[in-house]
Amino acid sequence: MKRIAVLTSGGDSPGMNAAIRAVVRKASYHGVEVMGIFHGYEGFIEGRMELLDLGSVGGIIQRGGTKLFSSRCPQFKEDRYQYQGIEKMREANVEGLVVIGGDGSYRGAHALSQKGFPCVGVPGTIDNDIPGTEYTIGFDTALNTVIESIDKIRDTATSHENSFVVEVMGRDAGDIALWAGLAAGAESILIPEESYNIDDIVNRIKRGEARGKKHSIIIVAEGVMSGSELAKILKEKANIITRVSVLGHIQRGGSPSARDRVLAGRLGAKAVEVLLEGRSGRAIGINNHQIIDYDIEEVFINKHKADVTLYTLSKELSI
Amino acid sequence: MKRIAVLTSGGDSPGMNAAIRAVVRKASYHGVEVMGIFHGYEGFIEGRMELLDLGSVGGIIQRGGTKLFSSRCPQFKEDRYQYQGIEKMREANVEGLVVIGGDGSYRGAHALSQKGFPCVGVPGTIDNDIPGTEYTIGFDTALNTVIESIDKIRDTATSHENSFVVEVMGRDAGDIALWAGLAAGAESILIPEESYNIDDIVNRIKRGEARGKKHSIIIVAEGVMSGSELAKILKEKANIITRVSVLGHIQRGGSPSARDRVLAGRLGAKAVEVLLEGRSGRAIGINNHQIIDYDIEEVFINKHKADVTLYTLSKELSI
Amino acid sequence: MKRIAVLTSGGDSPGMNAAIRAVVRKASYHGVEVMGIFHGYEGFIEGRMELLDLGSVGGIIQRGGTKLFSSRCPQFKEDRYQYQGIEKMREANVEGLVVIGGDGSYRGAHALSQKGFPCVGVPGTIDNDIPGTEYTIGFDTALNTVIESIDKIRDTATSHENSFVVEVMGRDAGDIALWAGLAAGAESILIPEESYNIDDIVNRIKRGEARGKKHSIIIVAEGVMSGSELAKILKEKANIITRVSVLGHIQRGGSPSARDRVLAGRLGAKAVEVLLEGRSGRAIGINNHQIIDYDIEEVFINKHKADVTLYTLSKELSI
Amino acid sequence: MKRIAVLTSGGDSPGMNAAIRAVVRKASYHGVEVMGIFHGYEGFIEGRMELLDLGSVGGIIQRGGTKLFSSRCPQFKEDRYQYQGIEKMREANVEGLVVIGGDGSYRGAHALSQKGFPCVGVPGTIDNDIPGTEYTIGFDTALNTVIESIDKIRDTATSHENSFVVEVMGRDAGDIALWAGLAAGAESILIPEESYNIDDIVNRIKRGEARGKKHSIIIVAEGVMSGSELAKILKEKANIITRVSVLGHIQRGGSPSARDRVLAGRLGAKAVEVLLEGRSGRAIGINNHQIIDYDIEEVFINKHKADVTLYTLSKELSI
Repeated sequence: MKRIAVLTSGGDSPGMNAAIRAVVRKASYHGVEVMGIFHGYEGFIEGRMELLDLGSVGGIIQRGGTKLFSSRCPQFKEDRYQYQGIEKMREANVEGLVVIGGDGSYRGAHALSQKGFPCVGVPGTIDNDIPGTEYTIGFDTALNTVIESIDKIRDTATSHENSFVVEVMGRDAGDIALWAGLAAGAESILIPEESYNIDDIVNRIKRGEARGKKHSIIIVAEGVMSGSELAKILKEKANIITRVSVLGHIQRGGSPSARDRVLAGRLGAKAVEVLLEGRSGRAIGINNHQIIDYDIEEVFINKHKADVTLYTLSKELSI
Repeated sequence: MKRIAVLTSGGDSPGMNAAIRAVVRKASYHGVEVMGIFHGYEGFIEGRMELLDLGSVGGIIQRGGTKLFSSRCPQFKEDRYQYQGIEKMREANVEGLVVIGGDGSYRGAHALSQKGFPCVGVPGTIDNDIPGTEYTIGFDTALNTVIESIDKIRDTATSHENSFVVEVMGRDAGDIALWAGLAAGAESILIPEESYNIDDIVNRIKRGEARGKKHSIIIVAEGVMSGSELAKILKEKANIITRVSVLGHIQRGGSPSARDRVLAGRLGAKAVEVLLEGRSGRAIGINNHQIIDYDIEEVFINKHKADVTLYTLSKELSI
Repeated sequence: MKRIAVLTSGGDSPGMNAAIRAVVRKASYHGVEVMGIFHGYEGFIEGRMELLDLGSVGGIIQRGGTKLFSSRCPQFKEDRYQYQGIEKMREANVEGLVVIGGDGSYRGAHALSQKGFPCVGVPGTIDNDIPGTEYTIGFDTALNTVIESIDKIRDTATSHENSFVVEVMGRDAGDIALWAGLAAGAESILIPEESYNIDDIVNRIKRGEARGKKHSIIIVAEGVMSGSELAKILKEKANIITRVSVLGHIQRGGSPSARDRVLAGRLGAKAVEVLLEGRSGRAIGINNHQIIDYDIEEVFINKHKADVTLYTLSKELSI
Repeated sequence: MKRIAVLTSGGDSPGMNAAIRAVVRKASYHGVEVMGIFHGYEGFIEGRMELLDLGSVGGIIQRGGTKLFSSRCPQFKEDRYQYQGIEKMREANVEGLVVIGGDGSYRGAHALSQKGFPCVGVPGTIDNDIPGTEYTIGFDTALNTVIESIDKIRDTATSHENSFVVEVMGRDAGDIALWAGLAAGAESILIPEESYNIDDIVNRIKRGEARGKKHSIIIVAEGVMSGSELAKILKEKANIITRVSVLGHIQRGGSPSARDRVLAGRLGAKAVEVLLEGRSGRAIGINNHQIIDYDIEEVFINKHKADVTLYTLSKELSI
């Protein structure tokens, strides 16, 4: 291969820029050119791209967001748009594609691979919900953003002896809620992977109060219910008054953490290696500290699992 | 005076601890003891307090919240509770009181002063809305928290070319919205002090789009309307789709900024000076870099004004 | 005027980008074009510049450093290079210049003004040492960087009961040391504006120890002596062992604080106004919250003064 | 067991407080009391300790440093002091000990175990240099502190087109330098585990310059040489002028990252489990996401190895 392309797709996550940089630099190391496609699959269909040289990825390793922009592109599910994009790539002598994004974005990469256009997927999402990789790019940064926010909320919760319900992102996965809850010392954590028990939450709050503790932090993953729904339930069932904080989109931005930058560098570099080895339809991931690649179909067949030992631990430590 | 007391009241703000520390250390410098009253006026009524020595205010200058806790105490409006508290203070040989809080808290300080118990008020609120002082303790930290959050939101807004409505605190004052909007480069800012014009907001967004700019950040002060109300209006009137972020209580917490710590140190020290000079019913403030004291009644008579030249500037810079 | 230029010169400071943005946007508001000159006066001499439109200053308000680069250019003291630069500007129809930098950079602006080329100076330096303005762009951010560093150092100082000497920037001015020392609760602060007394420093440490306090933080401005020199003196004179931390260039970088961004916006906009009013040889500053302009020669005649009331206060609060 | 103790020893690291909290809460979950020993082995010898209940570890999960203080205690190498400490513990009905610290601290834990006093070691050091565990508590936070500092330095390096040598901690281990260098996009990284070649560093700088890149960041682990030594070599061998930044003790402090807090929680809880199972002389660690325990002697026999694949990657990405 003499020229490949890279795009970012779906929800953006901190570290996507670091991954783009790694793709460009690793390819450059092997004498291969990289085209940056703008706006995800939308730009792929239209061939909207430009050459990324070493200078064009300078000074981006520390930036949140993605310099290639991202988008959701529902029409890309249709074969004819996929063929149109492949045609655009061939006209531009692009021989392979690195897709950085979440599982939705992997669908497109898979479809292109099956149509004979070599693609690999790099996991870029804060949700940490892609089967086959232990971590995704952006998860660690989002965690740190969440705990810094909860640390601030705890200042005011402690001072006023109020309780707070904090709603965090994660779609159907509880990883952000679970890790952040453990890291922030939350009194209760609600995640989609585990059934919750309002009585248990109420008991924890009351046990704390009996010990003289007058504030609690309850973390709820958006995949369980909204923060205001939970607050309403606590009010109705046990007359517990809580304030609600929905952290929202701040979780998606910010300068990537050290872990996310290193992970992005490793995964992005591996994606280039896999393409240059002539392989296609592969997903890149990390497993026991090793960077691996695996059949991208596994992402659709398997289901991501949160580490439930952390959930058990959180229960024990928040007695 | 041989012994004074200090309490924090109302909404907490970053830098209250630094102010407590300054009160204790300045008093100690003059050989005067300081009692720390817990839970604001609630603790005052009950005489819930302990001696604060130099060691007990060590390691708190950098902490958000208030080590003395805060509360809102509606019953303190009644004379009998005020007298009860004064009695408790006299039993404990406390001869004067520093109240750190917002304008609601100043009412209590004023009432106590009028009943012959010497009080001074130190402005502690993120809202920057206390007449007679240019800045309040916590405002600068809240501003920095807000702009760091908007910087994160802008990462994802830029990457996805979405527009965001960001709702910030400030009660009836627009200072947080105005300063943060200017500092974050918001495309539009809505504050209670200025009438807004939906057409103008829409035009700004459309002008930006015409220039190729596909995302906008609109800041709305909670005193104008909620973020979701504004989003609804933009949708209905101009079919502009925005995402909404309500920053919420993170604005109240966090380690105080350098400015807030210095301000807290200066105001807290001045409060002690004024008490030791035998004066009462005074509010402490900053005016043209000088620390001043003035009749606490001015706080109730006058109205805080936001700096409208900043509003004009924000309009010019966000063309 | 139809076209002006802007450059950054001397040591960079956080907020320079926000100032550049304000110059471009304010000029654009008045229908005036702005050329961005690269590498300070070096680029001025050679006419190295490009047109800055609204898009080219998008996404820079939050970035440290300067997108126009900076440099020190000793040869610019010579008349012939000044004339050469003016010639380059005239060829490009540039009719006025905004110089963002420290007092060294103001010399160039002054010389150009005297040769008939309209110039105004905007104070951009972390040192806060420009006569005629109460604050310079970057000072507030540097303060926050310093206190966050000292907060970290205090964690380890407290845990190990060690004392630390922390050396901070500021050239001949003590503002960074003084404000940061007060904000971080330093036990002693050494600034060029006040004579220091080793015995007093030693006594403070020993008094603290007698009270059970086993760590101290001593801030020394680089304009007094180096951190290691002070540590050596403390060792030799009183056998006090300290660790030394030289904060160094981290003080120059980082995303600008809210205050610095607002200040940069106001000063940059005013600089454009002054030029468009046909005035030249002016310095822009802030005084009692008002943005002012004054004869740039005052910068060379007068001397910046640190606020010594803060020094007195720091002594009282660190008993 | 009815009562155990915990101490922190050696260089402090962010997350030690979170580990103490986990020890207390996990023990409490099992109905076991925890005594907190002050000042490491020094306090152990003298029996300087107090009961830690749930309330006493409230509000510390997010704090840097260690609330139990730390110290280095050379005399603890002597048998008689070890016996004296064991005696003190027995008098206080303490039946086991959790030691949080680096490999030096593990020596003491090992000696006590051999004398029949049950001990387990929890890895608390920023250096990440303890054999048998993939990560130590504090490493991740230190990494983030280092990259935030380098991001700031890069602002000024880019603006001024200067090159910087940044010296980071790590004792004999290169982990901090390696990970931070990769995460910050350093042009060259010098670690004790790999021989360095000045010519290669020089070539990288010159290749960058040939491409138009005028600044470089070179990271040197303190275990290789000091930053100023490296700067001197670069000057003498290739006339390359660099500025030097020694990050120093800021690397030891700060609020722990999410990863460090979760790791601290898991390791601390496991330490209690191991003690309660009646085992002694064990080190706690993390391996492939599982929390493990292993013979503490392995720490002295084996040698920590940095992940050299990261080194290779850093070379490829910094072409």
